[in-house]
This record gives sequence, C-alpha cells and structure tokens, in this order.
Amino acid sequence: MKIGVLGTGTVGSAIATRLVKAGHEVRMGARDSGNAKAKAWAAGEGKGASHGDFAAAADFGEIVFSATLGEAALDALKAAGPANLRGKVLVDVSNPIDSSKGMPPALFTGPGDSLGERIQREFPDARVVKALNTITASLMGHPEHLHADSDLFVCGNDADAKARVQVLLGEFGWKTVHDLGDIRSARGMEAYLLFWFALYGAQKTTGFNIRIVR
Amino acid sequence: MKIGVLGTGTVGSAIATRLVKAGHEVRMGARDSGNAKAKAWAAGEGKGASHGDFAAAADFGEIVFSATLGEAALDALKAAGPANLRGKVLVDVSNPIDSSKGMPPALFTGPGDSLGERIQREFPDARVVKALNTITASLMGHPEHLHADSDLFVCGNDADAKARVQVLLGEFGWKTVHDLGDIRSARGMEAYLLFWFALYGAQKTTGFNIRIVR
Repeated sequence: MKIGVLGTGTVGSAIATRLVKAGHEVRMGARDSGNAKAKAWAAGEGKGASHGDFAAAADFGEIVFSATLGEAALDALKAAGPANLRGKVLVDVSNPIDSSKGMPPALFTGPGDSLGERIQREFPDARVVKALNTITASLMGHPEHLHADSDLFVCGNDADAKARVQVLLGEFGWKTVHDLGDIRSARGMEAYLLFWFALYGAQKTTGFNIRIVR
Repeated sequence: MKIGVLGTGTVGSAIATRLVKAGHEVRMGARDSGNAKAKAWAAGEGKGASHGDFAAAADFGEIVFSATLGEAALDALKAAGPANLRGKVLVDVSNPIDSSKGMPPALFTGPGDSLGERIQREFPDARVVKALNTITASLMGHPEHLHADSDLFVCGNDADAKARVQVLLGEFGWKTVHDLGDIRSARGMEAYLLFWFALYGAQKTTGFNIRIVR
C-alpha cells in the first residue's frame, strides 16, 4: 500500500521505517521538499522509500500518518492540504504536549477537547484515527521489544478506517488493539500521556507500555 | 491500626469494609454524625467499625482516607479539620471529575494542577498520598477479582507515608504498587481517569485495570 508519513522526527521515522519493512511504499513528508532528514531517511531505506513536502506525501498516501510534534500538527496538515486528505484514513499519532512550563508537561487542548478532535473538525472529509500516541517511538513498530504482550488503542468516527489501522498495527506485531469508540476518546488517549510521563519519571525509561487486565 | 475513612459512598464503604476485614479499627466519617449510611455501615460491620462526623473520623485515624466525591473533597477535609490531619498520612482516593457537560467527563483542576496537589497545599501538615483512584471501588480491596495480576500507583512528597500506604495496599492483596514520585504525579494519576472512562465506554465494564509491561 502507498502510505504518506508527515513528520521527520523520531516518531515519523520510526513509523515510516517500519512500514517500509512491512512491504509498503512510503513517502516521508516535511515542510520543505528538500528537508535533509527526509532525504537521508529515503536514501537510507532505499527501495519503497521516497520523500517530499507535506502535500506530496499526503497526495501519495492512501493512508496518511500525522506524526509531527503536536503543536505543529494542524499547520502540517494544512500544508498537506484538505484535498490530499479527503476520504483518506488519517492516523493521528501526535500529542498536545505543552512543556513551556517545564516538566511534567501539560496538555494544550483544555478540558472537553483533544488534538484528535481538532484535526477531525478541521478536516471533516478525512477519516481520523487516533493511534500509537500512548507509547514511545521505538516501541511503535516493535511490540516484541517488551518482555510480555501489551496493548494499543484506536479511536475514531469511521469503523472501516479504524479496522484498516488495526490491520497495519497487526503487521507491526500488535496482537491487541482496543477500539475505544469515536474520536472523543482521543481526550482519554491524550490525557494518558500525563500518566505516561509520571511513569517515565519513576521508571527512568521510556521502554514500557500497559496491558489491560480484566 | 486506627483508620478514618471520610466518605460514605461506594468508594468509602469499599475501603472501610476491606480495612475492617484486614483487622483494622475503622471509623467512617460523614458530614453529619447521624448520617444513615455511615450508621448502617458500622452496624453491618460490627466489631472494629464505628462512625461519626468528618472531624471524629479524622481524629480517630492514625491514617485517614479521603474518599468523598472529588468536588466535595476539600470541604470534607476542612470539616475534618487541619488539627485532626496534622502529621498524618492522608490517602487521597478522589478524582476531580467534572461531569457537568455530560460524558465523557472532564477534570475540574485545569492544566498544571491536580486535586492531590490542592489537598497538599491546603493541608501542608498532612502527608498526602494519592492512591487507588485508578480503579473502580469494588476492585480496590480485591485485586484477585481480575484474571491476572495488575498494578497500582502511589505518589506523594513523604516517602514514609507512601511506604505505609503500600503496606496497607499489600494487605489488600496488591503485589505491585509503583511509586510515581512526588505529589505532582497526581496530575498523571488523575488524568488517567479520562483514559479509564474511554476504556469503560468501550468495554462496558468497570472491572478492569492495567499492568505495566517493560
């Protein structure tokens, strides 16, 4: 499948690399088409990997990952262009982290809202699925790096879009991906980050995740 | 040990009952000393159980549980009285849930704050430990009701206070209680509730918890 990944940081490159490994054609998008990190990534991956600006990556993908910093997500998607996102599965991986007042960070979205919902409101023709924002970048494509099975979560308004993301996550090796309902559950998935930071501070490692026990 | 439990709802009575079962003397506190639920609880438990107003319960306890609704917590503690909380371990179980705009709920504390921190600021001589707010009342004293081991969390500024709460939770059967650091981690433990509500909505049961996987 052709997939666009917006973002050249640790999250974007982790996802893009894992998708190529899974056999997909991946175009990494950056603000500028000549972005050095995107260019280096595409050259390093070789076959199946290409790069371009946000619009080129979004146009390329049948599925598009929004994997920039949370504060940059809406601008990156505007640069990608609504026409290039129309009808597509848009996987929102970002977190609305506000670390302007130091650690632990806060969320910049305020009560009763989330970045996932803001993206869905701003791009009503995209099929937004919140996913992968609950773990560190290096684990996203490698659940086997942990010592036991752990869980992921998706939410979004479009059942087919969520199912397609669940298939991709299954290709990454994730066995249990809980569907948390419509995009309003992005509030919970993003609020979880504050809990994640508390765990991170206590454990001094980002190499952890959670398993739901019933 | 003598323990005071402020709150007569499902959380307060679940904790109070489990403490009596573990062999402690427990006084349940309510706004009014004649509160019918507190009276019925004490009569039902019999030996080891008593009831009174918030001040009487706080005065009685070497350890005090704050187990009212989040929105009532500070008022209940003011009624309990700073003198009755001075130097004591104060276990804050409540969540700052604002469901005035329907479900899913929001938190009323705003960014960069938490109910745990508000309580610690308001009662600087109490040794506040946030605990047990991440699971439903019926599981608090019964981790064995789940099909596999799951985890709890504490945070607070006083290491000895946290250790004493961890001992109590161990008496309840909890095997793994992560220390998340100082009371600022209450932000994460309370934000987790928004994630909990998303899981609750998806799973249609409150009978779940999480296990940290590394």
